[in-house]
Amino acid sequence: MTKKRVYELENFGLGNDRLLLNETLFHNANGYIGIRYSFEEGYPERYRSIPGQYINGFYDISKMNQAERLYGLALEKQTMLNIADTQRIRVFIDGEEFSLFDGAVLDSRLSVDMDKGITVREVLWRSPGGKELKITITRMTSFYQLPLFTIEHEMVPLNFSGDILIESRHSGNVSNFVDPSDPRTADEGFQYLLPISCQIQDGASYIVSRTSESCLDLCSCVKNVMSKESRQEFLFNNNTAICRIATTANQGETIRLVKYSVFCDSIRYENCKTQADLEMKKALSVPLEELYQKQEEYLSDYWKNCYVEIEDNDEINTALQFNLYQLIQSVGKDRYGNIAPKGLSGEGYEGHFFWDTEMYIEPFFTITNPCISKKLIEYRYNILDFARENARILGHQKGALYPWRTIMGRECSGYFPAGSAQYHINGDIAYSVIAYYLATKDLSFIREKGAEMIFETARLWLDVGNYYQGKFHINDVTGPDEYTCIVNNNYYTNVLAQYHLRWAVKFYGLLRKAGSLHELVRKIGLTEEEIEGFHKAAESIYLPYDENLKINPQDDSFLQKEKWDLKSIPKNKFPLLLHYHPLHLYRHQICKQADTVLAHFILEDAQSEETILNSYRYYEEITTHDSSLSKSIFSIMAAKLGMEEKAFGYFKDALYIDLSDHYRNTKDGIHMANMGGNYMAIVYGFGGFRLKENGIYFAPILPGGWSGYRFKISYEDSRLSVHIGKNECAFHLEAGSAKKLFIYGTEYFLEDTIVIDRPSNIQR
Amino acid sequence: MTKKRVYELENFGLGNDRLLLNETLFHNANGYIGIRYSFEEGYPERYRSIPGQYINGFYDISKMNQAERLYGLALEKQTMLNIADTQRIRVFIDGEEFSLFDGAVLDSRLSVDMDKGITVREVLWRSPGGKELKITITRMTSFYQLPLFTIEHEMVPLNFSGDILIESRHSGNVSNFVDPSDPRTADEGFQYLLPISCQIQDGASYIVSRTSESCLDLCSCVKNVMSKESRQEFLFNNNTAICRIATTANQGETIRLVKYSVFCDSIRYENCKTQADLEMKKALSVPLEELYQKQEEYLSDYWKNCYVEIEDNDEINTALQFNLYQLIQSVGKDRYGNIAPKGLSGEGYEGHFFWDTEMYIEPFFTITNPCISKKLIEYRYNILDFARENARILGHQKGALYPWRTIMGRECSGYFPAGSAQYHINGDIAYSVIAYYLATKDLSFIREKGAEMIFETARLWLDVGNYYQGKFHINDVTGPDEYTCIVNNNYYTNVLAQYHLRWAVKFYGLLRKAGSLHELVRKIGLTEEEIEGFHKAAESIYLPYDENLKINPQDDSFLQKEKWDLKSIPKNKFPLLLHYHPLHLYRHQICKQADTVLAHFILEDAQSEETILNSYRYYEEITTHDSSLSKSIFSIMAAKLGMEEKAFGYFKDALYIDLSDHYRNTKDGIHMANMGGNYMAIVYGFGGFRLKENGIYFAPILPGGWSGYRFKISYEDSRLSVHIGKNECAFHLEAGSAKKLFIYGTEYFLEDTIVIDRPSNIQR
Repeated sequence: MTKKRVYELENFGLGNDRLLLNETLFHNANGYIGIRYSFEEGYPERYRSIPGQYINGFYDISKMNQAERLYGLALEKQTMLNIADTQRIRVFIDGEEFSLFDGAVLDSRLSVDMDKGITVREVLWRSPGGKELKITITRMTSFYQLPLFTIEHEMVPLNFSGDILIESRHSGNVSNFVDPSDPRTADEGFQYLLPISCQIQDGASYIVSRTSESCLDLCSCVKNVMSKESRQEFLFNNNTAICRIATTANQGETIRLVKYSVFCDSIRYENCKTQADLEMKKALSVPLEELYQKQEEYLSDYWKNCYVEIEDNDEINTALQFNLYQLIQSVGKDRYGNIAPKGLSGEGYEGHFFWDTEMYIEPFFTITNPCISKKLIEYRYNILDFARENARILGHQKGALYPWRTIMGRECSGYFPAGSAQYHINGDIAYSVIAYYLATKDLSFIREKGAEMIFETARLWLDVGNYYQGKFHINDVTGPDEYTCIVNNNYYTNVLAQYHLRWAVKFYGLLRKAGSLHELVRKIGLTEEEIEGFHKAAESIYLPYDENLKINPQDDSFLQKEKWDLKSIPKNKFPLLLHYHPLHLYRHQICKQADTVLAHFILEDAQSEETILNSYRYYEEITTHDSSLSKSIFSIMAAKLGMEEKAFGYFKDALYIDLSDHYRNTKDGIHMANMGGNYMAIVYGFGGFRLKENGIYFAPILPGGWSGYRFKISYEDSRLSVHIGKNECAFHLEAGSAKKLFIYGTEYFLEDTIVIDRPSNIQR
Repeated sequence: MTKKRVYELENFGLGNDRLLLNETLFHNANGYIGIRYSFEEGYPERYRSIPGQYINGFYDISKMNQAERLYGLALEKQTMLNIADTQRIRVFIDGEEFSLFDGAVLDSRLSVDMDKGITVREVLWRSPGGKELKITITRMTSFYQLPLFTIEHEMVPLNFSGDILIESRHSGNVSNFVDPSDPRTADEGFQYLLPISCQIQDGASYIVSRTSESCLDLCSCVKNVMSKESRQEFLFNNNTAICRIATTANQGETIRLVKYSVFCDSIRYENCKTQADLEMKKALSVPLEELYQKQEEYLSDYWKNCYVEIEDNDEINTALQFNLYQLIQSVGKDRYGNIAPKGLSGEGYEGHFFWDTEMYIEPFFTITNPCISKKLIEYRYNILDFARENARILGHQKGALYPWRTIMGRECSGYFPAGSAQYHINGDIAYSVIAYYLATKDLSFIREKGAEMIFETARLWLDVGNYYQGKFHINDVTGPDEYTCIVNNNYYTNVLAQYHLRWAVKFYGLLRKAGSLHELVRKIGLTEEEIEGFHKAAESIYLPYDENLKINPQDDSFLQKEKWDLKSIPKNKFPLLLHYHPLHLYRHQICKQADTVLAHFILEDAQSEETILNSYRYYEEITTHDSSLSKSIFSIMAAKLGMEEKAFGYFKDALYIDLSDHYRNTKDGIHMANMGGNYMAIVYGFGGFRLKENGIYFAPILPGGWSGYRFKISYEDSRLSVHIGKNECAFHLEAGSAKKLFIYGTEYFLEDTIVIDRPSNIQR
């Protein structure tokens, strides 16, 4: 069976870039809180560190200056906040301060144990004065108790006995990370979160802070528990609680401090201070080991559901597990949060939620943990009124248009041509609702929430599009590829709108049949004529196709632009967006990421395989993959089209984007969408999995050099396990009722196990 | 002959909106300084006033926040500054302060005498205490001595004798006007200009101020000269010099104060303080009457050159004279200034220079005062290096791209899709250089400056465009109509680029023939291959044409968008840009202003008259004229196309845009481009004048109800006068050598006078 899921660095090194990268890679999160891996004992002044701690969906509002104030532009944005810092633990042994930057590090190891849900740092250190200390620090953000973060700090004096002084801090003076040189991070320093009360109570420190504009409160509470007798004293200074713990250490004895932090916000809790108090009591009421136990149980369930393994390939498996682990760490567990492009691991993109959720993350959860997809969709339902408001701002009298980037529901796009103009967000969200329905057949959810979202967003297409020469056109929108903005008939947008509109009609039929339409029709004033309008638009939609190249052009005018030879661009000019004016990019046939190729993945039945293949080849030549959302999709499509080596190449590149810091910005957070993309590259790519209206599809290929791979799928009431070996594929019904499935296009009925021969890979 | 050119308001009223409008309409300017008409004695607190004083080309730099910091976006902008306030003169008679808002205004009159170049305010006032005073205030910004502004302040006590106290102020504490609700004015208050020295010297006050970022200095000097004995004392308080003048007044006696202000900046003068001193001495060295005399002489020359008159129509003549007067008031007289959309009359568009200069203002000066057009072109030559820099920012390796809006040469567009993307600015500037050449045949100017501009800007077209299916396309630019941004093959842009490229080739030939190419070729590295490239691109340029409608579409995709029925839009939703999101505008067939119609005016030979007529009719239906640059062009084209009533209707609307405050924003300044447009509507419109390579063209029509009109044209070394009567047109050579001209398409040779029958107007 599977080996232990551990990713570790031996002798992790102290270069600043590596430390910043580690802060991200080894962050702890549970979907509610996220804590970057900052050394408890701190860094020398010259070092940069981003010791962020975050809460999913907890934000402040700040002014967004528009250089020209055109009507309807967003003038405010939300920002995910760096909350109270509870990581600091300084240690003095006989007056010498422990620091990896002083004395000698004799041995070190940093690891994330993905079965146990903890990170562990082990250090063997010799002080400048020659004292040797073994330090083991275990950190956990609890999946069982979401507001809880623990640091278990153990020290063993190896060659001495002496006085130990510990300074454990809890500071309310925090602000967000600022990098004016990078447009993808915030550019202005500002302390959003201001402490309004600080107190010590029952040996714990409480800091309640309030955001400056959104008027949200957050209570952080910290309690330090020592394993042996010690003197504790508190000092409150400038909104920082310092707990000084003095004890003595005997050679060989383990000194253990457990630092419990809980965080409760006023979005989820009526009284965040009272709740923090309750949470702290709850955490302290059981031994830490029991919390560890619960963490492991939670993850054991998780791994069972999303099981995927390459045979005899530990390296890839570990990287893949790392990817899946980040997904469960990052994803919101309630309707107030969602999943940001950087999860809870950093401040890139200011913690806004984008389409990444629907198109890269949910395709994973929907077939492994559909209840999580449901939560993510509920978040969107929760902000539907803001989407309606947004539609009005954009000039639409009816329907809803989801904001391109948001936390609490209002649009935060600064540059609307690459923001609000991405109307495909509506299609993306609809696509995810449909996928959730296809995977679960949960019609009651559609009735209660999904249909309202589907209809309201479908209405937008009718308002944004128009008939021209008998065809339904959608003009002046931006597709996924932001290197071309405000275009007409973006293929991705149009084909997705078609799918969306068709499903709006289908859901209408399904709900009418179930007699569940009445209330909704009354609520949103939906008419039969509108449904007919959906149908007509869907069937008349214009999908650009070029007769010469036999491809789907990305948009109406894409092919008339100049091609830009990628090979002619110096390596240091990538990503292009940091080195070329938008107009220069817009004017060329150049893609930041999969756009039409993505459309061909998610809606493969809209075009012939020949068109899809031609398009793939065409776009591959001009795609920079400057976005981390690109390579996984190219991998999936290469697999589909029989280009197995290419598929594997893209997959391997994508798999290590963060572990190898491919974009040199993982310090700002992990690339969450890519994490989902890598899962998709295995299951949807190599496995050829598709979720369709009439059932599920598989068409596995085996990358060269692999002896086999396995994965599991949840579908309706069942769980299936799939094994692709050298010569055969085996499909096994692990749980639930028998299911129809299509393997290489042939229909089967899976009651227990089906084993079929695997055809040789096509070689293109 | 012509009656006196005077525009006056009897009993001008004291409503705040009217006063703000008058501040603009009655401002004094000479192309160097501009002074809004703010009452010397001030306003009650509750009144809003914009007492601006400006210098052409004098600016500070401020930060421009971009909500998303994409590569190459402008992060700073220049702003025309409100300079030291020298307008205030308070008067106390026996302790009662003169104010139009106290006591009773028995009679009042405000006028601008456009022959004399002065504004005069006459007031008959009764104080609350019953004292009656006649006040006459004459203001002048001298064309003879550009830094000089005079206020001649005369009072006659009508029914009393008593003590008079005058407080004449000179204040360095000024900041720009702010209106956060209007995107066309500045949105943040900031004191750009900080006084660095204030002193009294020889009875004059001097304030030297420095800009905060551009580090420019300005010295203002004020001297008060009384007609009769008085006691003067100075007070300097908070950067404000107050000159207190005490005297006694006898009933019936005229008390005259002349307040001289001079302004010298460090852009034009090495030592602005020394220069101010010299200028003040110069002003004081002659009687004021002599300055008035020189002013009148200057204007007499001006009116002679730009003579235009409608017979028996004083109302239109006055409005037209008002228009032409604003042109000479506003236009820069040296290479440091230019002409802003609001001239020197207000702060709209922050005093930036746009294409308005080349396409709306120069067509007037080029055929009336070509030396002024030359100065305006020299300004562009002066900033050619910035245009080169701008081209690099936009990704072009060669050539120059003029900034869309600027003062000192750097781009100030906040929103580049409706700013920097307007590449037609290059064509506009080239067009104006060509027109200057056609009107003057000044090849030496072309050799020295013009050709370098023409070639450098022509190079841009080759870099921005590309060949597709054998045609030369220009993608991702914005045409004049900002209700559609970033489009492909904007007809206006392409046809202008064609003209520009053709003339680049022609100038190359002309200069080669003259043996004057060598130096320039060496300077900018121009090659024969490039010239061939210009030729090839010009002859292959793609000009969109729709076979069905037989029109030139505004751009490739304009016709596939939804038409927006103008009549369905509520009146209070205009201008649309203040009420609809840009994407909503972009998505509709709706125009802010003449775009293709303008192209058909300036380059009428590019299309058949049928196409031009069809296009006119098509665009007329969907043009909102939300821009003041629109109606005059529609008037010209209606005249060309024989729709004489329409032509007259548009002309009349446009003529009164400021006098009737049509856009309700004349308080922010007069609409300069429209002022030029109105001249064009007469000469190019009704007169059918065109300036072409093979000569000048006329095709006059006579608007119904007119008995005739006259105008004069400067062309090469000659001046022509034209009279269009009921039945005939007369062309007379006033000065210079005989000229070939085309009248209604027939070639004539004008040696003295030609009289021909006027054909009846076509009626469409």
